[in-house]
Amino acid sequence: MATRATQLRILQAALELFNEHGTAAVSSNRIADRCGISKGNLQYHFGNKREIIYAVFQQAIGEMDAGWYRDHLAPTLEHMAAMFVRQLQLILKYRFFYREMADLLRQDPQLRKRFADNRERRMRDLERFMLTLQARGLMRFPPDPRRLRSIVDVTWIVNENWLNYMDYHDRQVTVEAMLEGYAEILEVLRPYLCADPQQITQESYLTIERLATQSSAEAVARSAAAGN
Amino acid sequence: MATRATQLRILQAALELFNEHGTAAVSSNRIADRCGISKGNLQYHFGNKREIIYAVFQQAIGEMDAGWYRDHLAPTLEHMAAMFVRQLQLILKYRFFYREMADLLRQDPQLRKRFADNRERRMRDLERFMLTLQARGLMRFPPDPRRLRSIVDVTWIVNENWLNYMDYHDRQVTVEAMLEGYAEILEVLRPYLCADPQQITQESYLTIERLATQSSAEAVARSAAAGN
Repeated sequence: MATRATQLRILQAALELFNEHGTAAVSSNRIADRCGISKGNLQYHFGNKREIIYAVFQQAIGEMDAGWYRDHLAPTLEHMAAMFVRQLQLILKYRFFYREMADLLRQDPQLRKRFADNRERRMRDLERFMLTLQARGLMRFPPDPRRLRSIVDVTWIVNENWLNYMDYHDRQVTVEAMLEGYAEILEVLRPYLCADPQQITQESYLTIERLATQSSAEAVARSAAAGN
Repeated sequence: MATRATQLRILQAALELFNEHGTAAVSSNRIADRCGISKGNLQYHFGNKREIIYAVFQQAIGEMDAGWYRDHLAPTLEHMAAMFVRQLQLILKYRFFYREMADLLRQDPQLRKRFADNRERRMRDLERFMLTLQARGLMRFPPDPRRLRSIVDVTWIVNENWLNYMDYHDRQVTVEAMLEGYAEILEVLRPYLCADPQQITQESYLTIERLATQSSAEAVARSAAAGN
């Protein structure tokens, strides 16, 4: 098997195991077992578990970047709801990372640096997106850039932590749970919305329902195809 | 040594080690070593590491409850800033828990239940506090109780995650870092403040500076006393 294909298989197996059991409970050997390769073969690609975690995170960053940088080209409130769903889906896919974030970032300065840089860049993208909404007359933010940054930062923190909160309360990631999280974000943005918040809330919810239902239908189709 | 005194010594040693290295890297034996007791003696008090983690968390809850339930008796904006500092100091003291929260809560259903109940109760206390501020004419919240809950929830999420964010960006827990976190919380509450937000911000900052300086002076005094 080609190098890149083996590496992708290792990363996929690692992601599954980390999500199921947490990184501390998963050894490199177990990852090798899961993808049916030898311990030596795995070590040829990744020297240790930390390298695997870092590579999985790089993959997550790649996926983030693929969507994010064009957001300001679709400056609508509907797209903002779609961005929220996309972020939740990414967190769901890489949930071990969001569960163990503080610990993983403490253990690996290189990962911490990469994460901080990425977060800073995405925060600027989100600010740019908000300013484009403002330019289109959909929102009106305070002129002080530090206040805009605080508002954006708070919505980010809520988004990033929402699935963990569902976990703490033994709740499944249903469409309802997603809508609740978005309600909190809209509550933060509400004082700055130009149009009727009631209508915006309803439209956003329809978008979230549609995207969440669509992606779970895709997941069912994928698992049916895998079963054949 | 009396049973309770030994238990407290074990919990103190565990807290220090967990904060330094994370729970995964700390064995029960290492905790016994740190407090200079035998492995058998430790096991007599706590059957395994999970029990120790649970007991440390119970201790944290005890400290939270000691302060929280009387907050609505001091319904001032100055006290709200003091509550924020108190919460940050608690998180700092039990920082391993806030770093590893998602993982620890997943591993222990009893801990998860206890945490969720405590969070729910404190959220209600915080709502009650906010409504008392409103009754005193200091704030004016939306009449919809779900909206008030969202606002309170968001401020909580920011408070709970602020020190982790400082960590991610390699920043120390300075007074400045605390002020920045509180600025984000005030930004969420700003649309509902009755008085001049500028003045409230300044007064809150003075409170935070005073409390943070006071507690670090106390820490220096404690370590000087311990050194003698």
